[in-house]
Amino acid sequence: MSKSPVTVVGLGPMGQALAGAFVEAGHPTTVWNRTAAKAEALVARGAVLAPTAADALAASELVIVCVIDYDAVHEILEPAAGALKGRTLVNLTADSPERARSTAAWAAEQGADYLDGAIMTPTVTIGTPAAVVLFSGPENVFAAHRSALETLAGTTAYLGADHGRAAAHDVALLDIFWTAMSGIVHAFALAKAENISAQELAPFAQGIVGLLPDIVTDFAAEVDEGTYPNHVTNVNSAAAGMAHIIHAAEDRGIDVGVLRAAEAVARRAAAEGHGADGFSRLTEVLGRPSA
Amino acid sequence: MSKSPVTVVGLGPMGQALAGAFVEAGHPTTVWNRTAAKAEALVARGAVLAPTAADALAASELVIVCVIDYDAVHEILEPAAGALKGRTLVNLTADSPERARSTAAWAAEQGADYLDGAIMTPTVTIGTPAAVVLFSGPENVFAAHRSALETLAGTTAYLGADHGRAAAHDVALLDIFWTAMSGIVHAFALAKAENISAQELAPFAQGIVGLLPDIVTDFAAEVDEGTYPNHVTNVNSAAAGMAHIIHAAEDRGIDVGVLRAAEAVARRAAAEGHGADGFSRLTEVLGRPSA
Ligand SMILES: NC(=O)c1ccc[n+]([C@@H]2O[C@H](COP(=O)([O-])OP(=O)(O)OC[C@H]3O[C@@H](n4cnc5c(N)ncnc54)[C@H](OP(=O)(O)O)[C@@H]3O)[C@@H](O)[C@H]2O)c1
Ligand SMILES: NC(=O)c1ccc[n+]([C@@H]2O[C@H](COP(=O)([O-])OP(=O)(O)OC[C@H]3O[C@@H](n4cnc5c(N)ncnc54)[C@H](OP(=O)(O)O)[C@@H]3O)[C@@H](O)[C@H]2O)c1
Repeated sequence: MSKSPVTVVGLGPMGQALAGAFVEAGHPTTVWNRTAAKAEALVARGAVLAPTAADALAASELVIVCVIDYDAVHEILEPAAGALKGRTLVNLTADSPERARSTAAWAAEQGADYLDGAIMTPTVTIGTPAAVVLFSGPENVFAAHRSALETLAGTTAYLGADHGRAAAHDVALLDIFWTAMSGIVHAFALAKAENISAQELAPFAQGIVGLLPDIVTDFAAEVDEGTYPNHVTNVNSAAAGMAHIIHAAEDRGIDVGVLRAAEAVARRAAAEGHGADGFSRLTEVLGRPSA
Repeated sequence: MSKSPVTVVGLGPMGQALAGAFVEAGHPTTVWNRTAAKAEALVARGAVLAPTAADALAASELVIVCVIDYDAVHEILEPAAGALKGRTLVNLTADSPERARSTAAWAAEQGADYLDGAIMTPTVTIGTPAAVVLFSGPENVFAAHRSALETLAGTTAYLGADHGRAAAHDVALLDIFWTAMSGIVHAFALAKAENISAQELAPFAQGIVGLLPDIVTDFAAEVDEGTYPNHVTNVNSAAAGMAHIIHAAEDRGIDVGVLRAAEAVARRAAAEGHGADGFSRLTEVLGRPSA
């Protein structure tokens, strides 16, 4: 069966990966980018470079856009909006849930169907089983394009009709990612100050990050139930543990802003009477103004 | 071959697990705890409860101590110090590298050999292949007791002669742990505010934490080489990503102290001219006073 045509707007590293996956899978692929030169390698592989954004939108019923942010999305699409009517716009640009919802409303005004998406894995994964892309928006629109979208990723998850849901997942997941990343670079700084090389610490650090998946599972159940059993660590011992790390880092002249802020949340929970609860209690404390 | 006698001082959850593993493996095991009642289950399994701490130290050449902190270690051992002469004291209490070094010096004054250790996995792992315990101190002392210590954990790592090294690893690893844990509870708070249950987010959160082991490996090599290639993310895009999360969290009235502190470190690196470098550059920025 011949594959449906697809347009990809935006050819940064991610846009190139997306377009490349469609070309590879045999979809007739039209591309457009503000800087046209970035289309060269894709054209060599069989993609068609549209001369204008409007031509790109006209070329396929399914239009993927993936640029730096929603300001850039609107800068590209608004002058070409006439060509959006009857199209399905799938916006894989990362931004906030609110902006996803307002862009969905704008697309509706142009007579376009709209899905918002969030790409959870790096460019190298795109088109492979390792890729994860989340989608939200009308279910029938997702169903109509599911097979083309599955070209991009081993896991394409449909999250619901609210257009903001993919972005909301994205923001929460990046929250885990960047906070953990901050912990990793900080730990390497602390180790270095103690004459432990990063590569000496790394195998043990793998062990620590390897504990997190089970903790995620346990905490998720606790948070949804609103019960915070103290099985492994309680809020008080977490605060004391963080204080130890802060002390050791300060002794070595290392910035402790992140840990101080984390400790403050635990101390606040303890002050509110939750010191003996499990650490997952902090989810509930973080979500409401301090007393 | 009959197993060597072992003494375990301190019967909190961890001390009980340690003593239990020795009993299980057939080591004649003497225990002592400030609150004697906590020895009951162990005595039922064959451990011997010593009437005083000094009697406990006298009972075995190998003495493990695992209590809440080093103040408690000294409170227990100082009145009984006469019984330490000729013993090997293995302190598995968590504290700072400095305190490990000073306790080693104190033990030497009592005529005792000393190893400092750090337990990296929860009580349930003790005595199983999943447990990880780190040791530092004189290599010959570790070698003499290696086989008994291997009863405790599938991975018993010897890290070097500096008594502070196990605690230094511990602090750096707990740094990763508590920072990442703070990110997990924060992400659940943000998801909840967007009507995403923790259990809906969890499978994707597993995917995110699953990216960390490879990042640890890559960053460790970069940090040790002092080169910070921008392969996946640079400092500027990290700062922008954190700003998005902060914005979304503030919109929902969620505390953003940790992310603000993390963003400040990235902004500082950018201000110092490292915006286009990889995120691992922050290790070097965190470790020196701001310009
Ligand atoms: N890279 C990844 O691994 C990854 C992973 C997950 C999600 N994402 C998301 O995917 C999206 C794209 O990321 P990326 O990695 O491809 O690189 P990027 O640097 O975020 O975006 C570059 C793209 O944005 C375009 N652009 C920027 N400003 C523009 C403007 N004012 N008008 C028109 N176009 C503009 C660029 O066009 P020019 O070429 O003309 O500059 C280029 O096509 C982002 O939202 C990112 O968060 C990326
Ligand atoms: N639990 C874990 O999963 C885990 C994992 C890794 C490392 N660790 C480390 O292992 C050590 C022990 O932890 P734990 O879980 O067993 O519980 P803990 O609450 O940290 O320590 C309890 C033990 O400390 C004793 N203690 C407290 N204050 C004392 C004092 N002033 N004088 C004499 N004894 C005192 C308690 O005696 P009483 O019974 O008389 O109160 C009990 O034996 C800690 O350093 C902890 O960080 C624990």
